[in-house]
Amino acid sequence: MRPILILPLLALTAAAPATKPKTPADVLAAAPAAAWKMIPAEDLMVVDLANGSRVVIQLAPAFAPVHVANIRAFARSGWWNGGKAAIYRVQDNYVVQWGRNETEDPLPAGVVKLPPAEYHRRLRGLPVRPLGYPDPYAPRVGHSLGWPIAYDPKAGTANLTHCYGYVGVARDLSPDTGNGSELYAIIGHAPRALDRVIAVVGRVIGGMEKMSAFPRGKEALGIYKDRAQDIGITSVQMASELPAASRPSYQYLDTGSATFGSYLRLRANRKDDFFIRPAGGIDLCSATVPVRATPAK
Amino acid sequence: MRPILILPLLALTAAAPATKPKTPADVLAAAPAAAWKMIPAEDLMVVDLANGSRVVIQLAPAFAPVHVANIRAFARSGWWNGGKAAIYRVQDNYVVQWGRNETEDPLPAGVVKLPPAEYHRRLRGLPVRPLGYPDPYAPRVGHSLGWPIAYDPKAGTANLTHCYGYVGVARDLSPDTGNGSELYAIIGHAPRALDRVIAVVGRVIGGMEKMSAFPRGKEALGIYKDRAQDIGITSVQMASELPAASRPSYQYLDTGSATFGSYLRLRANRKDDFFIRPAGGIDLCSATVPVRATPAK
Repeated sequence: MRPILILPLLALTAAAPATKPKTPADVLAAAPAAAWKMIPAEDLMVVDLANGSRVVIQLAPAFAPVHVANIRAFARSGWWNGGKAAIYRVQDNYVVQWGRNETEDPLPAGVVKLPPAEYHRRLRGLPVRPLGYPDPYAPRVGHSLGWPIAYDPKAGTANLTHCYGYVGVARDLSPDTGNGSELYAIIGHAPRALDRVIAVVGRVIGGMEKMSAFPRGKEALGIYKDRAQDIGITSVQMASELPAASRPSYQYLDTGSATFGSYLRLRANRKDDFFIRPAGGIDLCSATVPVRATPAK
Repeated sequence: MRPILILPLLALTAAAPATKPKTPADVLAAAPAAAWKMIPAEDLMVVDLANGSRVVIQLAPAFAPVHVANIRAFARSGWWNGGKAAIYRVQDNYVVQWGRNETEDPLPAGVVKLPPAEYHRRLRGLPVRPLGYPDPYAPRVGHSLGWPIAYDPKAGTANLTHCYGYVGVARDLSPDTGNGSELYAIIGHAPRALDRVIAVVGRVIGGMEKMSAFPRGKEALGIYKDRAQDIGITSVQMASELPAASRPSYQYLDTGSATFGSYLRLRANRKDDFFIRPAGGIDLCSATVPVRATPAK
């Protein structure tokens, strides 16, 4: 019989009988409805590709408000629509990057040309659940408002982190911060060295398995060799602008909830059959925040 | 102008003038020939796919000797050749898995049916360069013999880690350890919880950008829905069995060398233009060991 490597990250089995050790999936299956929070439609960006794929991105206005406002303004103005934008860079174990081809068009109304460097924010005002395991990049790591954060209690700062699927704002050399017209998503091991160097503005919550499987570009930095290889973007729309009936809807697990606490404890200490030796720890980018399509009523 | 996200993981620029801060690429470019070690042809496995791609895997006999001996025996016997084997599982942010379809064929001569659990080894006898930054999974991490390791000085044990591109032996539930006929490679964020639960036997050092871009499987665990979607394997051969002229040849940077020490220091503390704020740390799976095709004489 073919041995199948059991999947620890996202167990698909139903809740196990009481005699078996609980899995993270068991915890999610038993989560009360109140532990799931709606993602506002204003924070959902819907990217439709010419190849028929749809990618949904959740924006993080609490962490990069000016960049997020720019991105919403670009989307609302149709900046990336109608064949003007494409995925033009896919670099293995690093990023997928997209945006408009070079253009002299004036920026849409409301876009801040040079946003402030929103590479971190004040820790104050953020409800924090410490992860409780050491991190090589920051004094402390944990979760806040449904997001993974690295933080420094002494400096009083907190930042989103470059985890798998997370979206950042491409930029030129400092002091440019990028205006949000060119974005990238992480498709490999978390490049955390970018954390306080570039603005993280959100994460891919739908269609990530499409984004990560594009052919890698052969030019320097993973740029596609010629524009014919680019993956066209048909449209980028905010979910809030879509008719209610065709609006995607997602929820995230409240990172302040008891359910998320139990989930993390089990993620760090798997005791089900396959895990003969629990890890006894977990890194921030493996301590993913569960997100789901809103269940039908 | 299109802003291009500068690439920190593998800078492609030539050595910078003396006035500019050194980059990790500068250090590699200036490495003495003696800092590069040949990978023995006995440790190189060449996987040719039906779609024309070639993948090269470096085996790690110092860490999983019985599993590696099995894998060599499978390769030498032609076990995976002639359309009998395929990639049949691609799970996003997790693994690509391959092997033979179900078979009742007797195992090749020399294959140990149930190898010992080579999930870690004795620390004694390993030259270790400590990384010097905290790790959420192990008391200590560092490098040894060209590999990233997690180790526990108290228990006296060391293990290879599940980093991007690393190859492990698929298995059923414990106490099965897998005989090596079914292997997987990591194509996402390092799933370190697997570290002391499964045998790591090597890493992909050629063709990884092909492995990571296969379409994700739609069945549970990323299995392809039907066998027609499988990516066929034409042959798997040890480089040592190939004619010298067509034998691939690779070198790795000696992890005990001063060059690797400088390289790691700069990886953890980038000071070149883009990195306005050096990370001040690095995680083990980002502290990759440089590997290159052996330069022509």
